[in-house]
Amino acid sequence: MAPFNRQTELMDKARRGASFDTYQLTCLIHGGADIVERRRAAFHRVETVANTLHQSQLPRSYANMDREEAYDEGLEWGKAAFEDGINYNHDFFDNITPRYVLSNASPFGLTTVMFIPTIELQATAEQKAYWLPLAKSGKINGAYCQTELGHGTFVRGIETTATLDFKTDEFVIHSPTLSSTKFWPGAIGFSCTHSIVLARLIIGNKDYGPHLFMVQFRSLDDGTPMPGIELGDLGLKMSYNGTCNGFATFNQVRVPRTDMLMGNAAVSQDGTYTKSPHAKLSYATLVYVRTVIIRAVAFQLAQAVTIATRYSTVREQGLGPNGMASAETALMVYKSQHYRILTNISKAYAILFSSWTCDAEYQELRRQQTKGNHSTLPFNHNLAAGLKAWSTQTAADGAEESRKCCGGQGYLMTSGLPEIVASVTATATFEGENYVLWQQVGRYLFKCIDVLKAGKSIDPQMSYLSDGYDHFFCADQAVRITASPCDARRTQFLDPAVQLSIFRHRALRLVFTIYNDLRSSTLPPADAWNQHMMNIIAAARAHIEYLVLSFFISHTHTLPDSPHQRVLTRLRSLFALTTITNPASINAITFVEDGHLSLVQLRDMKDCVNDLLAELLPDAVALTDAWDFTDASLCSALGMRDGNVYETLMSWTRQIPINVHANQKKGVYEKGWKEWVEPVLRAKL
Amino acid sequence: MAPFNRQTELMDKARRGASFDTYQLTCLIHGGADIVERRRAAFHRVETVANTLHQSQLPRSYANMDREEAYDEGLEWGKAAFEDGINYNHDFFDNITPRYVLSNASPFGLTTVMFIPTIELQATAEQKAYWLPLAKSGKINGAYCQTELGHGTFVRGIETTATLDFKTDEFVIHSPTLSSTKFWPGAIGFSCTHSIVLARLIIGNKDYGPHLFMVQFRSLDDGTPMPGIELGDLGLKMSYNGTCNGFATFNQVRVPRTDMLMGNAAVSQDGTYTKSPHAKLSYATLVYVRTVIIRAVAFQLAQAVTIATRYSTVREQGLGPNGMASAETALMVYKSQHYRILTNISKAYAILFSSWTCDAEYQELRRQQTKGNHSTLPFNHNLAAGLKAWSTQTAADGAEESRKCCGGQGYLMTSGLPEIVASVTATATFEGENYVLWQQVGRYLFKCIDVLKAGKSIDPQMSYLSDGYDHFFCADQAVRITASPCDARRTQFLDPAVQLSIFRHRALRLVFTIYNDLRSSTLPPADAWNQHMMNIIAAARAHIEYLVLSFFISHTHTLPDSPHQRVLTRLRSLFALTTITNPASINAITFVEDGHLSLVQLRDMKDCVNDLLAELLPDAVALTDAWDFTDASLCSALGMRDGNVYETLMSWTRQIPINVHANQKKGVYEKGWKEWVEPVLRAKL
Repeated sequence: MAPFNRQTELMDKARRGASFDTYQLTCLIHGGADIVERRRAAFHRVETVANTLHQSQLPRSYANMDREEAYDEGLEWGKAAFEDGINYNHDFFDNITPRYVLSNASPFGLTTVMFIPTIELQATAEQKAYWLPLAKSGKINGAYCQTELGHGTFVRGIETTATLDFKTDEFVIHSPTLSSTKFWPGAIGFSCTHSIVLARLIIGNKDYGPHLFMVQFRSLDDGTPMPGIELGDLGLKMSYNGTCNGFATFNQVRVPRTDMLMGNAAVSQDGTYTKSPHAKLSYATLVYVRTVIIRAVAFQLAQAVTIATRYSTVREQGLGPNGMASAETALMVYKSQHYRILTNISKAYAILFSSWTCDAEYQELRRQQTKGNHSTLPFNHNLAAGLKAWSTQTAADGAEESRKCCGGQGYLMTSGLPEIVASVTATATFEGENYVLWQQVGRYLFKCIDVLKAGKSIDPQMSYLSDGYDHFFCADQAVRITASPCDARRTQFLDPAVQLSIFRHRALRLVFTIYNDLRSSTLPPADAWNQHMMNIIAAARAHIEYLVLSFFISHTHTLPDSPHQRVLTRLRSLFALTTITNPASINAITFVEDGHLSLVQLRDMKDCVNDLLAELLPDAVALTDAWDFTDASLCSALGMRDGNVYETLMSWTRQIPINVHANQKKGVYEKGWKEWVEPVLRAKL
Repeated sequence: MAPFNRQTELMDKARRGASFDTYQLTCLIHGGADIVERRRAAFHRVETVANTLHQSQLPRSYANMDREEAYDEGLEWGKAAFEDGINYNHDFFDNITPRYVLSNASPFGLTTVMFIPTIELQATAEQKAYWLPLAKSGKINGAYCQTELGHGTFVRGIETTATLDFKTDEFVIHSPTLSSTKFWPGAIGFSCTHSIVLARLIIGNKDYGPHLFMVQFRSLDDGTPMPGIELGDLGLKMSYNGTCNGFATFNQVRVPRTDMLMGNAAVSQDGTYTKSPHAKLSYATLVYVRTVIIRAVAFQLAQAVTIATRYSTVREQGLGPNGMASAETALMVYKSQHYRILTNISKAYAILFSSWTCDAEYQELRRQQTKGNHSTLPFNHNLAAGLKAWSTQTAADGAEESRKCCGGQGYLMTSGLPEIVASVTATATFEGENYVLWQQVGRYLFKCIDVLKAGKSIDPQMSYLSDGYDHFFCADQAVRITASPCDARRTQFLDPAVQLSIFRHRALRLVFTIYNDLRSSTLPPADAWNQHMMNIIAAARAHIEYLVLSFFISHTHTLPDSPHQRVLTRLRSLFALTTITNPASINAITFVEDGHLSLVQLRDMKDCVNDLLAELLPDAVALTDAWDFTDASLCSALGMRDGNVYETLMSWTRQIPINVHANQKKGVYEKGWKEWVEPVLRAKL
């Protein structure tokens, strides 16, 4: 039963003002009422086991926690979530934890998010038959070791070796240098029992480059590291402290030859190497994981903006815009506040819809691959890479902005926001550093244009480039930079076709301009690439933003007319128009620098944005409620669903151990007072 | 003696490639060789006391630390720094800690950064004579209580009351509501003995609004809270965990009437209230503190980018741009890396030079105020507010970008970067939330134009607005939005006069356009303000960026010709041109939306930027060395001055207590294994 006070009253009123039925949107987000109900039951069971159901109690993460206690909490959560999935036959926590972090944040989560998928994609039938049942039943706890102290995104540079010993029919796994120390893999510090290890395959004197090997890391009897393996934890990180990202060194560690994952490339007993049938087949794992990341960061941004929305609804501060109101005014009323919050809500939905398309494309790829058709892999690889780069940066920036929207209170760990911001910002780096990914996207775009120039056809999903080819290339191959002004005015900017044409014009102009700059450069290729790198990244980004908007349009167009469909349509316009006019929008200058849009048109767009904001404002709480976050999953005194912010914040604060301990000592923190404060007061200085 | 390995070799080579003498620039940054030497000695003493001098040892902050241990460390650091200042008669740590955070991060730091300055500005001569010697000698530990649970930036809304009791000649300090709980003030949890408290002055039935009162919080004998005062800590925050930001509630707490700070407003024994001679006199403290913040965040951004520069110098990854080199290439070679790093270096210097002007203006204000002349207070108040908003956002974004430049390693606490990012981002919120400050700047700009329209003169530092008035207003007061194109080409964009004219055109156009929109609006003033708020903020920001560039120009122009002057001149051009062309630059669209700059000119600017980057690249290490950070003050395995990154990182990692403890148990973290991992492995699922 929610308490009744000014804050809960404001929240209740805001919630009742929505123009649509929140549950309908929740079902859309999660894929149907059945899944919504099953998810809710799963969260309830896990939160019961982890004892996080009741918000009157200070969440354990905000008590005095050191490195070891943070890991203990992760083990407790992780075990509850992993076992719930097995016991109740669901995959809700296979990829994201009950706190909506990627499952690599759980000491048991690598099994579901990396270990099992890698076996499924890279192992032989025999290997699958052996390892999958063990992993799926939790009889072993799997991890995945790729990154080294000296090598991250540049996978080809990894140094760990796996040398075939013909005599014993084994591979010898070894760390030849300090920089070859495996560094960062999740769960390897103290949790996993087995890990797939990426190492250079060495047969005789020949180096075949990185391949995957199954290695037992710890004894199943007592957890001690296997002989020759040193394991440890990386200590405190910005977030992810519930798991033990670790390091591993190998000193001549032997594994059977048959423990190389040989679903694609293979090595026979006599050392014969059989190449993978498709050079990029091993990329499929990466595509899959990036797809998972895109979906997860939609939820993480939604978490942050849910907290900001709720707090801004009940926090009253100042006398309104221009300081002229007669009473204090909820933060949400201020334009700068609801502009930032609603824009970030629109971005969370944009990422979600993009992840749906990316998922669907991946499923289709897998269907084709089982028939031996790998032709769409380059497109999929690049779509996932580009969307990963775009969505993680968007989510990280948006989560931090949502945190800043909560002022000083957003700086407290008890607000839940620092933890969300810190966990989502990790995704900008891992599974492919974003600046590297943008360049991969650029490289793929330029290859597509090369193919077009050769008169051949490109991946159908990229067909819009053909139009650009016709438009931007003259006979002499020079780029036409002539302005082709947009002719829309006023509310025409709410038309999705107009919006998409603007994004499309920009993407084509940037892609073809930089293509021409690169191909016509007289510099050596590496220098030319470096010279133009910032423009390459900008072009790749413009391409992805065009796709994101097109996905947003297609997913809202297919919905039957309904109140929530109309709201999502407004969000889509808000997303499109603020990508152009938001002061903080990256590369916004490229929408106007060629004269495609005029100052008057930008003013029209800003007027449309103001109208959209006014229409969407009453739906802000419902648009965030719809993601269906439990209070425990937000773990935020500011983001309480009932709006009871101030009482919760003070109650949690009084329960913080340093306060409880001091209260037992007449309000003094004795150690600090005696060792440092009192000596200063009494010193003769 | 630095070890010799690949990383230290790369660092040494990079350092030797500089075009100028680093020490000359260090002396410029800190104000002379004498100060540089005295600072170095002070750091050495404090780092000796705090036992942080030797980098072979894992810094204590990265060991298992819970809330209480983090506070212990802050007390130890804080005591050492505070006492060193008194013993050696310097002010190096009065405003910033030995880790370069604002001194409110020390449990003893509020005394110097807020308590003493407030007494100096707001107390009577008699009060000063009593309190200053106590505070300056450390006989009391002072704090400053303003923010409440329900009130931050909107100071007029605070609820704590100070009611005059005529009978006893006392004020009764009281917290009438939950939301009136003092919440956030530094050092009040468990460290301070006294605090200046902002409370509403109540005499009879009349509320005179917020005034300042001196209140004893804790017994000097045993540290227990004084009767009627409840004190506690706010728990873990993103950073600032070395101090005890706290809460305080007052239950009818009595202080002598004469403990109201009566340097300006006063209350006599019979309850007669005498108004402050100048309504905005109490703003002087705020101006001072913001000036301190601007200077501090220059150093914090410099810290982050120093670490990123050093790591990027020794981290080799990938086969160069376009992946075609024959060997792995240092990160710094990649355009996207040195573009981001050098741009942030230029921003750190831009903030530093702005802080110099802001300091000088403040000193002049104080000189004038002692003569009873307060006329420049509005200008100073707004300059400090605008520079605070701009510099804190710039530093916070730049520090996070520097962290991201270090990839996965930047996510480790041992990189030092998470702590720096988390501490600098706090400044975007405290001492005036940035979005509120931008609007104050806007309000001041519009008042200036009103004054111009009335045919009167404005503050001389704002005289550029007069030119805009002539240029942008027609007789009918309508804004002329006609394009007035810039006519510069190619290397003309390196000319500071050209750069400044572009910034100036933009600022004037935005300020006068929005002024006209506001004044001609038919909406009620509050609605008009809200309608145009995003444009008001953009205009205020453009005004401040114009000032920042003008300060950068003036501070580099006054230097005699020298190698470091030439490098600073390049940095200034880089700052100016990337503010326009950087993809992440806020509001960059406003430089081009009116046609002032063409696509061809933007390409020219990008060519200039590329040339500047090539020229500056060999100086990157020296430009960061010049800030003179000790290894202990960076506290970063990635930012080691000698470049010995990998060995340090592994050495620190092995010293993390969870690893040390596990090593004593055959490599097992026993609690975790026994309680959670083993039960999963053995479960019948």
